[in-house]
Amino acid sequence: MRATLMYAAGDVRVETVPDPKIQAPTDAVVRIVLSCVCGSDLWPYKGLDSAVGPLLMGHEFLGVVEETGSAVTSVKPGEVVLAPFLWCDNTCDFCQEGLHNSCRHGGAWGANGVDGGQGEYTRVPHADGTLVKLPVPEDSDLLPGLLTLSDVLCTGYHAAHSARVQPGDTVAVVGDGAVGQGAVISAKKLGAERIILMGRHSDRTDLGRDFGATDVVAERGAEAVARVRDLTGGDGVAKVLECVGTKDAVITAFGIARNGGTISRVGVPQYAEVPFRFPDYWRNITLTGGIAPARAYIERLMPDVLDGTIDPGRVFDRTVTLDDIADGYRAMNDREALKVLVRP
Amino acid sequence: MRATLMYAAGDVRVETVPDPKIQAPTDAVVRIVLSCVCGSDLWPYKGLDSAVGPLLMGHEFLGVVEETGSAVTSVKPGEVVLAPFLWCDNTCDFCQEGLHNSCRHGGAWGANGVDGGQGEYTRVPHADGTLVKLPVPEDSDLLPGLLTLSDVLCTGYHAAHSARVQPGDTVAVVGDGAVGQGAVISAKKLGAERIILMGRHSDRTDLGRDFGATDVVAERGAEAVARVRDLTGGDGVAKVLECVGTKDAVITAFGIARNGGTISRVGVPQYAEVPFRFPDYWRNITLTGGIAPARAYIERLMPDVLDGTIDPGRVFDRTVTLDDIADGYRAMNDREALKVLVRP
Repeated sequence: MRATLMYAAGDVRVETVPDPKIQAPTDAVVRIVLSCVCGSDLWPYKGLDSAVGPLLMGHEFLGVVEETGSAVTSVKPGEVVLAPFLWCDNTCDFCQEGLHNSCRHGGAWGANGVDGGQGEYTRVPHADGTLVKLPVPEDSDLLPGLLTLSDVLCTGYHAAHSARVQPGDTVAVVGDGAVGQGAVISAKKLGAERIILMGRHSDRTDLGRDFGATDVVAERGAEAVARVRDLTGGDGVAKVLECVGTKDAVITAFGIARNGGTISRVGVPQYAEVPFRFPDYWRNITLTGGIAPARAYIERLMPDVLDGTIDPGRVFDRTVTLDDIADGYRAMNDREALKVLVRP
Repeated sequence: MRATLMYAAGDVRVETVPDPKIQAPTDAVVRIVLSCVCGSDLWPYKGLDSAVGPLLMGHEFLGVVEETGSAVTSVKPGEVVLAPFLWCDNTCDFCQEGLHNSCRHGGAWGANGVDGGQGEYTRVPHADGTLVKLPVPEDSDLLPGLLTLSDVLCTGYHAAHSARVQPGDTVAVVGDGAVGQGAVISAKKLGAERIILMGRHSDRTDLGRDFGATDVVAERGAEAVARVRDLTGGDGVAKVLECVGTKDAVITAFGIARNGGTISRVGVPQYAEVPFRFPDYWRNITLTGGIAPARAYIERLMPDVLDGTIDPGRVFDRTVTLDDIADGYRAMNDREALKVLVRP
């Protein structure tokens, strides 16, 4: 089958790799119908050392079950299914606590003999735990929206959920990418009254307004902090959702956080240390969040996608075929596209 | 009156300063009956630049009301009162949220024309908000225990409360100083089933066992992390209370935190950045805590001191007169004494 490999920064290729086969009774093989390029894929796209590559790419996909191992009971061939961006057993103590990213038997796509999501097929370990059945046909118009449940919508939700966003809250979302959009949608779902979206791309912040942002701050750095403080009577925002992953974004998050507030970070950290100065200790700022346990949230968010309450599929503003995926990476990296759908 | 001034690192003097007077209708003047030296006083004792000093010292005290301003209604001359380590109005929005350290009209002892606690008298701004009446006479044996409510017990409680310690929890306390002891007492009060106290001084860890610690880890650094992980089946501890303030203590806290766990920091940070590496993002570690809103907890904890359920006054293992306070500083800094009481 064909699959996407990244050899080094900027070097994405589609090549033939072995077809996946059932290896354990708990496996399934899924034919991929829809996948996409993630903002987090851009970090290696910018910096992957050729000595580390090639990497099997892709961790967001939905598709049709082709074959199941003898122990799989929850899905069967022909069914349309979605996978979260990490596979897991969904039964261990960490999964039961909603911490699927720490599943005792889980792992990442594209590593340790498991295929990536940007290909024609993938083997799914712990299929009963990992896969979620989608109640739609494989040509449904809802598939792009449902695909966001594999990562970006659930990651945005994790930011809002970890910050304990409640009805009436004022929330700031740092970053207007697909995860930031998911955070806006999620903050609104959890009842936030005011949602300040911080981003510089008007097409993206316009989309954020459609999703529920009530204010947009296009400034950066100290000017952005001053603007958010102006908008909040000088006090700042009690719940800050950091959806970028750079140190600058974290510094901005500290700058706009209200005393006693929470910064919930879901951007993949491109830094080793977090500024945590004496004044922030005095201010009792909480830092929470982390990688999202997407599997924990899929069933919770899916009804809103199915009934049209939310339309997170709007984050996809370009579609490529698998053969053209390298150009999809380029377009996202050049900020020509917000998020790129891939149809094998 | 006499009061304690720190001129530079290691240079503590008792000198005559102006007697405090009522300046605002909301002020009171309190004659100090008991004060003490704080672990946080040792940071300037180790490093204060003479160009910055002299500082008026002391932020933990109880005493007898001498005089009140015309607007003060909750206390009157002759009553025994306790003050938290920051003064506050106890009515503003931050105070109502339990964030008294951010009081809109509050401040610190020994700064901006307000006296310190290590002296004969002090002017108390916002006396109605700041002072808590103590239902004991000024010669009560309970005074040392009640004095811990001004800071160390409430600071330890803030660590446990911010970490949301619940019945049945396993908790680790990093640091066997007076705040660490308060954290042990507080974790037990909140129902922790297992309390692992990390400290190297057997007299202190023995006291911690009396207060409720179930395990003691005397190792440091990587060995301490390995030991705590051994004690917890490899997983680490879900609630870590960091009661030291050094970067090493924070690194240890990260090392022993269970995935999805919370590190609650109340040690005054002697660092500008917190290590927050990619693996900790993957592990969804929450960092919370900060300076304690002691005023928020005094009434909650006082009954346990009054009825003898807890005896936090045991953290005081030396008593000096005000004239000898410099030797009290030295003894604490040399670790001869855990915490030093001061009787003017």
